[in-house]
Amino acid sequence: MTEEQPPEHLRHKPLTDLTRPRELVLACPSFKSKVNLSRIVRLAGCAAAEKIIACGTAKIDPTIARDGIGHVVIERRRTLVPVLKTLKKEGYRIVGLEQTDRSQLIYEYVYRRRTALIIGHERDGMTADELALVDDVIEIPVYGMPYSYNVVTATTMAVYEYLRQFPDG
Amino acid sequence: MTEEQPPEHLRHKPLTDLTRPRELVLACPSFKSKVNLSRIVRLAGCAAAEKIIACGTAKIDPTIARDGIGHVVIERRRTLVPVLKTLKKEGYRIVGLEQTDRSQLIYEYVYRRRTALIIGHERDGMTADELALVDDVIEIPVYGMPYSYNVVTATTMAVYEYLRQFPDG
Repeated sequence: MTEEQPPEHLRHKPLTDLTRPRELVLACPSFKSKVNLSRIVRLAGCAAAEKIIACGTAKIDPTIARDGIGHVVIERRRTLVPVLKTLKKEGYRIVGLEQTDRSQLIYEYVYRRRTALIIGHERDGMTADELALVDDVIEIPVYGMPYSYNVVTATTMAVYEYLRQFPDG
Repeated sequence: MTEEQPPEHLRHKPLTDLTRPRELVLACPSFKSKVNLSRIVRLAGCAAAEKIIACGTAKIDPTIARDGIGHVVIERRRTLVPVLKTLKKEGYRIVGLEQTDRSQLIYEYVYRRRTALIIGHERDGMTADELALVDDVIEIPVYGMPYSYNVVTATTMAVYEYLRQFPDG
């Protein structure tokens, strides 16, 4: 740093204000790992995402999700397909996060503000039914072993890219 | 999608080639949570980071880090300060990831290719000794509860931003 004093760590910095509520929905399958949904709840809380749609019955672990619990709207569904159809009618761009035969590179992808991001299952990826509903599919390049990012890591990158494009909401 | 057939999930997609080896080093404190280093090992593996410098004695969990183990160079150190001084002499830009009184917004930050990214401790953040060595500090805006991203989530975002700026190495 050019300043004489080194930077000082700040605790409890106030939140960054949004100029309008986010219109980002995260749609999650029934994950194999029971911690992944909890981690996504904390991510969604910090990002001020509109809501999470979650399949399965995984409990949210408060030691992982922290105050994301109680602040993030979580809708439980048996499957994603009906709710994705509804979101589509409501004007959400349905965006899959998956390696497919026609995914777009995330670095080049231009998000719509009103977006429902569908996360693929850790082992099985997105279902054919879900893929039939997407408007776009984005993928994140992998450069080394173990060949694939953890599902929460991939979700984090896709959410970050959205926040970068809509820093103020 | 405009195509008649929906996109097809691809498994085992080949890795994205780099035109030259990455010069990104991740420097980690002795984390409070024993799973965080393992998660960063998987991230570093997929990103093809040059190496991880890790304080503390946390074992790498192979169920989390996967094949990141064996593919990511991990240097164990007692503290980060001496190795950061060496990296600085070797021409690495020392970049802290921390909320401080003069952090730069990650959305606007321009990385140097040769970068050592220092991760703050979950509870205590970066030490004053570490902050005295940084060239830059970057921070990630938080928009909602629980006020702070998990340390691996923040690291993931900072690494993603680096990859986005250097997609080919």
